[in-house]
Amino acid sequence: MKEEVNVGLLGLGVVGSAVAGALLEKEAMIAGRVGCPVRLRKVLVRHAGKERAVSPSMLTLDPSTVLDDPEIDIVVELMGGEKPAHDYLLRAIQKGKQVVTANKEVMAKFGPEIMDAASTMGVDVAFEASVGGGIPVVGPFRLDLLANNIQQITAIINGTTNYILSRMAKEGIDFDAALKAAQSRGYAEPDPRNDVEGIDAAYKLAILATLGFHARVRPEDIFTEGITKLTAQDFRYAAELGYTIKLLAIAREVDGQIEARVHPAFVPLDHTLASVNGVFNAVHILGDLVGPVMFYGRGAGPGPTSSAVVADIIDLAQRLHSGSVMRPPVPLEKTKRLRPVEDVESRYYLRLQVVNRPGVFAQITRVLGEAEISLASVIQKSETDSGRIAEVVLTTYEATEAAMRVALRALSALPVIEEVSNVIRVEDTSRPARN
Amino acid sequence: MKEEVNVGLLGLGVVGSAVAGALLEKEAMIAGRVGCPVRLRKVLVRHAGKERAVSPSMLTLDPSTVLDDPEIDIVVELMGGEKPAHDYLLRAIQKGKQVVTANKEVMAKFGPEIMDAASTMGVDVAFEASVGGGIPVVGPFRLDLLANNIQQITAIINGTTNYILSRMAKEGIDFDAALKAAQSRGYAEPDPRNDVEGIDAAYKLAILATLGFHARVRPEDIFTEGITKLTAQDFRYAAELGYTIKLLAIAREVDGQIEARVHPAFVPLDHTLASVNGVFNAVHILGDLVGPVMFYGRGAGPGPTSSAVVADIIDLAQRLHSGSVMRPPVPLEKTKRLRPVEDVESRYYLRLQVVNRPGVFAQITRVLGEAEISLASVIQKSETDSGRIAEVVLTTYEATEAAMRVALRALSALPVIEEVSNVIRVEDTSRPARN
Repeated sequence: MKEEVNVGLLGLGVVGSAVAGALLEKEAMIAGRVGCPVRLRKVLVRHAGKERAVSPSMLTLDPSTVLDDPEIDIVVELMGGEKPAHDYLLRAIQKGKQVVTANKEVMAKFGPEIMDAASTMGVDVAFEASVGGGIPVVGPFRLDLLANNIQQITAIINGTTNYILSRMAKEGIDFDAALKAAQSRGYAEPDPRNDVEGIDAAYKLAILATLGFHARVRPEDIFTEGITKLTAQDFRYAAELGYTIKLLAIAREVDGQIEARVHPAFVPLDHTLASVNGVFNAVHILGDLVGPVMFYGRGAGPGPTSSAVVADIIDLAQRLHSGSVMRPPVPLEKTKRLRPVEDVESRYYLRLQVVNRPGVFAQITRVLGEAEISLASVIQKSETDSGRIAEVVLTTYEATEAAMRVALRALSALPVIEEVSNVIRVEDTSRPARN
Repeated sequence: MKEEVNVGLLGLGVVGSAVAGALLEKEAMIAGRVGCPVRLRKVLVRHAGKERAVSPSMLTLDPSTVLDDPEIDIVVELMGGEKPAHDYLLRAIQKGKQVVTANKEVMAKFGPEIMDAASTMGVDVAFEASVGGGIPVVGPFRLDLLANNIQQITAIINGTTNYILSRMAKEGIDFDAALKAAQSRGYAEPDPRNDVEGIDAAYKLAILATLGFHARVRPEDIFTEGITKLTAQDFRYAAELGYTIKLLAIAREVDGQIEARVHPAFVPLDHTLASVNGVFNAVHILGDLVGPVMFYGRGAGPGPTSSAVVADIIDLAQRLHSGSVMRPPVPLEKTKRLRPVEDVESRYYLRLQVVNRPGVFAQITRVLGEAEISLASVIQKSETDSGRIAEVVLTTYEATEAAMRVALRALSALPVIEEVSNVIRVEDTSRPARN
């Protein structure tokens, strides 16, 4: 039964400053909702002396000032990155503190171990802000959807890539131009690899899939492909076929195995996810009882992130004030295995440059047939100036990744095929009905 | 610290049977997630003898068998309607039981009193299923969005009317034909008044607004208008102007006052709510930190509703098992007043039948101008066979309800106006950016 809850902050960057600001400005409102005051006491910063939103007397350069202070009840980690955040989180837990973190990398790589350590110490780890900014997604998995067996998670959880892809779809520009536009607006880092290669999305999917399927899904278990190979040409064909292209993070349970992957995908234009544009995020979930549900909002930024962080602080503070035990960690069911990527089935879009002569098409269909892949549609178009090369676009029915790899090797070896220009998965079979 | 949690059910209709089925079929999964078994013990039914999903030994016709049994920890009310559900809920609370309910009418009319009674007894009232079926909406307001000052709630929360309006928009049919289609598919009751007059949506908005704004909003405080006056003609004009028509439930804070209303509204086609079709529901929330967030899914039916009810049971059972105190009720801020409907501002669409002669338009604009209402657009069309009457469609800029009432009275009194055929609010000013 605490009559005052004290908070220590690790990190005072953009998000840290927003959280500190919200705690200070909303002190009265938060106290009303918790039942007692919640006070920001200490803030770990990397450099002293810069002008800050908080009183200089709170600032410290020494992590022990926050982690070892028995007065601090809740440690809020907003440093990002694996090190030293991971160590600090564990130290805070070992000191018996409640922990709030927005750190997707640490929670993706070490989440279950951190939860176990917290459970041993009788404290809780809250991490709503680690996925989807202020959109409630961790909360629903830990509480609201707990009566469901989750069947599939399909998410747009990286705002940078979604902004780039939205620009490409709308303006017909190529990846490089869209990336520059994103960088100039501050939506992409000068070194954008973490986003455009799908690594950030894979971290977030690891967290969502572990929560949703009660199975340990590590970032390295997730087949990950970025968006750098997409061209304006691919978007034109997508539109012609009734699709747009999104970077999807997909996890689903198939035959008792968990399949998890991040890659660009054709999404039907009338799918709810197709209209999620710009820096917005959306998490679409299929549960056995609830059917399809979707959560939508801004997936990043100081406002949305501090919304999630401060909500976690309020939840923990309510429990400390009322003397409640912490929420039980989500139990993992050890029997669930990850599905090898070779077994993953999807439909495919292939764009090929072929020699423009009779019989070529028969050779392509023979190669696909030998890999037991059936064609769904064909477009042949846009011959080059000389007329020697034609562009062929194929879509296939369901094929395993293994079969497609065999087919692609065989296609590349055909003398009549100049180039396999792109291969993109088509996601529409598990599309929930909208009416 | 309960090592077993016992549940009593009030009502075994469609939803009750689904909840009973889920508790029985998912017993092992639920026990794993709670930490101890959760057992269905007693079920109150209205008539004995019918074939049921649960063992006949559990059934009772006597409410005291459930309400007064000291063995029962959680009472789940799924009877619907105000009486006797309201009395039973209060009796259960007075007996110190945790309570779960899906009853929107009771929670809309008496929610704060029921929460107070529960708080006095140290128990909790969980009511996630009362709004939006299985879509988490109560949970987010009670927890995930608690760091925000909520600015606006805009919701499609009645599946029956949304189904009817989606059919009207898609097929160009009139209200009566769409209602018949909804009735034949079981989406509308034989007596559809509660849905089509907006009463059901007003109950749900009362619950959402009370939670979101921490202010008591009663169903009778909500300006409520149904969808029965909408015609195929209105949908044609809406499409022409770039809109569709939805039954919106809107609550927002304006100058410290809470405005709450349910009525048909023009919604821009590129608004996220415009693509919520059929029986789907969506709740769009604007918070000061999080910005816009939206929750989407099936708003009714045994599956979605049992998803929410069983999640509430799991949450309460976890707390009983761990010996935790119940979640504190949302404190109401008594200072917030309801905004009189006369002060509510919106844009308007007006469809008029006018005598087709010079100078008529000048008379209309003069009347509107005297009420200080500015025109945004005008369409004049579809003269009748005789050519005597023309149809005029106007849209206006922001006007108060009071000003519009004055204008409508004056318009109706003009000899050149045959009929004011329809008046519909246009909701796009508070539209969140999508990019």
